Amino acid sequence: MADTPTLSHVDASGSARMVDVGDKAVTSRTAVAEAHVTMAPATLALILEHRAAKGDVIATARIAGIMAAKRTHELIPLCHPLLLTNVAVVIEPDTELPGLRIVATARVSGQTGVEMEALTAASVAALTVYDMAKAVDRGMVIGGVRLLEKSGGRSGHWHAS
Amino acid sequence: MADTPTLSHVDASGSARMVDVGDKAVTSRTAVAEAHVTMAPATLALILEHRAAKGDVIATARIAGIMAAKRTHELIPLCHPLLLTNVAVVIEPDTELPGLRIVATARVSGQTGVEMEALTAASVAALTVYDMAKAVDRGMVIGGVRLLEKSGGRSGHWHAS
Amino acid sequence: MADTPTLSHVDASGSARMVDVGDKAVTSRTAVAEAHVTMAPATLALILEHRAAKGDVIATARIAGIMAAKRTHELIPLCHPLLLTNVAVVIEPDTELPGLRIVATARVSGQTGVEMEALTAASVAALTVYDMAKAVDRGMVIGGVRLLEKSGGRSGHWHAS
Amino acid sequence: MADTPTLSHVDASGSARMVDVGDKAVTSRTAVAEAHVTMAPATLALILEHRAAKGDVIATARIAGIMAAKRTHELIPLCHPLLLTNVAVVIEPDTELPGLRIVATARVSGQTGVEMEALTAASVAALTVYDMAKAVDRGMVIGGVRLLEKSGGRSGHWHAS
Amino acid sequence: MADTPTLSHVDASGSARMVDVGDKAVTSRTAVAEAHVTMAPATLALILEHRAAKGDVIATARIAGIMAAKRTHELIPLCHPLLLTNVAVVIEPDTELPGLRIVATARVSGQTGVEMEALTAASVAALTVYDMAKAVDRGMVIGGVRLLEKSGGRSGHWHAS
Amino acid sequence: MADTPTLSHVDASGSARMVDVGDKAVTSRTAVAEAHVTMAPATLALILEHRAAKGDVIATARIAGIMAAKRTHELIPLCHPLLLTNVAVVIEPDTELPGLRIVATARVSGQTGVEMEALTAASVAALTVYDMAKAVDRGMVIGGVRLLEKSGGRSGHWHAS
Repeated sequence: MADTPTLSHVDASGSARMVDVGDKAVTSRTAVAEAHVTMAPATLALILEHRAAKGDVIATARIAGIMAAKRTHELIPLCHPLLLTNVAVVIEPDTELPGLRIVATARVSGQTGVEMEALTAASVAALTVYDMAKAVDRGMVIGGVRLLEKSGGRSGHWHAS
Repeated sequence: MADTPTLSHVDASGSARMVDVGDKAVTSRTAVAEAHVTMAPATLALILEHRAAKGDVIATARIAGIMAAKRTHELIPLCHPLLLTNVAVVIEPDTELPGLRIVATARVSGQTGVEMEALTAASVAALTVYDMAKAVDRGMVIGGVRLLEKSGGRSGHWHAS
Repeated sequence: MADTPTLSHVDASGSARMVDVGDKAVTSRTAVAEAHVTMAPATLALILEHRAAKGDVIATARIAGIMAAKRTHELIPLCHPLLLTNVAVVIEPDTELPGLRIVATARVSGQTGVEMEALTAASVAALTVYDMAKAVDRGMVIGGVRLLEKSGGRSGHWHAS
Repeated sequence: MADTPTLSHVDASGSARMVDVGDKAVTSRTAVAEAHVTMAPATLALILEHRAAKGDVIATARIAGIMAAKRTHELIPLCHPLLLTNVAVVIEPDTELPGLRIVATARVSGQTGVEMEALTAASVAALTVYDMAKAVDRGMVIGGVRLLEKSGGRSGHWHAS
Repeated sequence: MADTPTLSHVDASGSARMVDVGDKAVTSRTAVAEAHVTMAPATLALILEHRAAKGDVIATARIAGIMAAKRTHELIPLCHPLLLTNVAVVIEPDTELPGLRIVATARVSGQTGVEMEALTAASVAALTVYDMAKAVDRGMVIGGVRLLEKSGGRSGHWHAS
Repeated sequence: MADTPTLSHVDASGSARMVDVGDKAVTSRTAVAEAHVTMAPATLALILEHRAAKGDVIATARIAGIMAAKRTHELIPLCHPLLLTNVAVVIEPDTELPGLRIVATARVSGQTGVEMEALTAASVAALTVYDMAKAVDRGMVIGGVRLLEKSGGRSGHWHAS
């Protein structure tokens, strides 16, 4: 096993399966994921002007990300349901992109990690930005969707290099 | 209005709102979106060996993408429910990345476009690949999530430059 | 039948049933519903100060109402699924209450009315206000949840007296 | 902090956020909420006659309330998912209203309270009554949706004054 | 193609796919499905005594079946969402089984049939009976889940032989 | 109580209710359920040929069963939400039937059993087989949906006779 990494979600015959986490310890687990939405400078300006006023593109995307995290196990076939104790989504403008940077954090006290919840929150927040701004900019691109950090569980702390 | 593009999902006071599509024509609409998952060469090899045998990583991701498209309006706050007539998700290996390329197509006969359904299908398929291979490669990155093409509706045909 | 009103959702033997709308005409239908949340004056002030800053209690409640409208048929057992063309939720402070007044509008082009969608949007927006402010005021009360107006369909226009 | 009550679901910058309950104790928590539906006397009579026979309006509303409680975290954006150990919905006629009175009780052993689950159960049960009787009485009004009592958790026992 | 029946949901390479129904005619379509739950005579007697009083096992199963039909496209990966115009679930005791017989009817005006909706309604109603009576009879068996009849669409009328 | 078995989900007045599991012990619980789909020999051959190639009918049904298990509490009105630690679905051809045999296993560490989750997984996997093969064989029948075995909880080990 040490020599041959295997795909934990595929059994010996190649069939998809959930990983049985019944024997894993209940520990406090956190995961942080990010995504960004690249857009035309004018699109970013429009979003930010509205944020100055009422902030609704960013506010809506933040809520969509939080709500999606709670439904991760419905979307990703082999994810376990779990009792998220917190989900936070932070969305900041980045004029270098230009666009928006999204960082999502998920926490649980449970038997399995929350990477997918953090990644799902970031992805759906990004998709919501796309939806709300697509009438002015269909060329936006979502990228850099990745895990930044995770802690808790047998594998301990990990962070992106 | 012609001179000043505005965000269709935000009203004059900045509040989030759905776009009223009640007066739009019912036309046949198609959208094509893509995403890719970049991974270590060894991760791709593992997935492909399983595909050779039973193909379940890719098969599972394809199904997850199709199912997610049907729930787009639950995830994206201001999307309209619609009667998808087809969703197709194609996932191909790309040794240049290295990783997997995902193309999702959504079709509807309705009053609003299906860009978000195609983008959601591609995103959730990519997240599912991440979930199924993350035990061997936490450093995978999802990127290039974008609209390739859309047709139907008032704005007619559009494709990414 | 003209003399004896009956409950359309209960059949002759008393069993719950959906109303068969297959023979109804497809017409444009609109419904408007309202609700209010009565609270301590200090609670309203807190919400409004935040609204001045970023408006998130009200913005979150508005989004929750819109999203809930789309899931009405999942919550109300005998409601039909339908293709909402618009949902709008307006939330205004009322210092007389004191509290917030919520007005929700739902529109569809379909075979059945959207009263339940408008009422569900208003109710869930109100519940969201309660959730977000309950840490400072558990005594809030949601009331006045009612249909204000409906149009379209065989029964034509109706508005609350 | 002791002097200035703040909205727990809004962070310092006004953005909506979940409350992190990861450090709260797991305790047994109960919440009781109520709602009522005011209607024309003839509407109440129709419902009760059916209840005498098969009781399906009230039975359906009771089930809808129970089922909705289980989905509270999907509807209310910042609610945590939790493992309800019980939901009970009692619906009684009140000829003084005239109408129906609904009392919903939710219980959990967890890190966060179940007020929203009880309130959601009562609200959706009331909406279901409206749906099933609206063909004979569009003027029904849902009111008095409030928390009656809660116990468990750091804040201990609370009941409506 | 006429000579070689193929699986419509599997493409030439064996990948799962939705059938594109965008070019099918919108017609009125109906499907009727059945299921039965076989149980000990004493279990049936218990259910029927309660039905005499308030009928709630059967009433609850009926509602569960109706609600499940509306979510068929969420459960069955390659089913299309559709606008059901009616779902009816009839549950009758059969002392010969002994047990309960369930007949579910689904109707739609749309581009694809409603067989799966009728079958899902019957199956979930049967599972609900099992759930509600399992404390007294774990040996119940659900069987005979099959399509009785369908009409509408290109293939016209079909009924079980 | 020992002498008179009662339906745990129906209270003294006949109203449907959830069983309060708040005082039950948290134990490791497992349930195994089965179902079969009987079909024409040619239908089975078609499915198996595709399985030889890419296996998608069976792979899709397996995933659908796993995903449905996670949503059991949304479908079955009085089921409790729970944190499944594993769901496994095995689907094997049986030329004697002829058709497919499905065995679903669900596991949890919780206060209530997982019989309904195992039964729901088996049922939805069977429905998915029906959906994917119905274009060539509408006469398929799902049967033998039953609990094979359960362990954990106060009632201890049980297996079908």
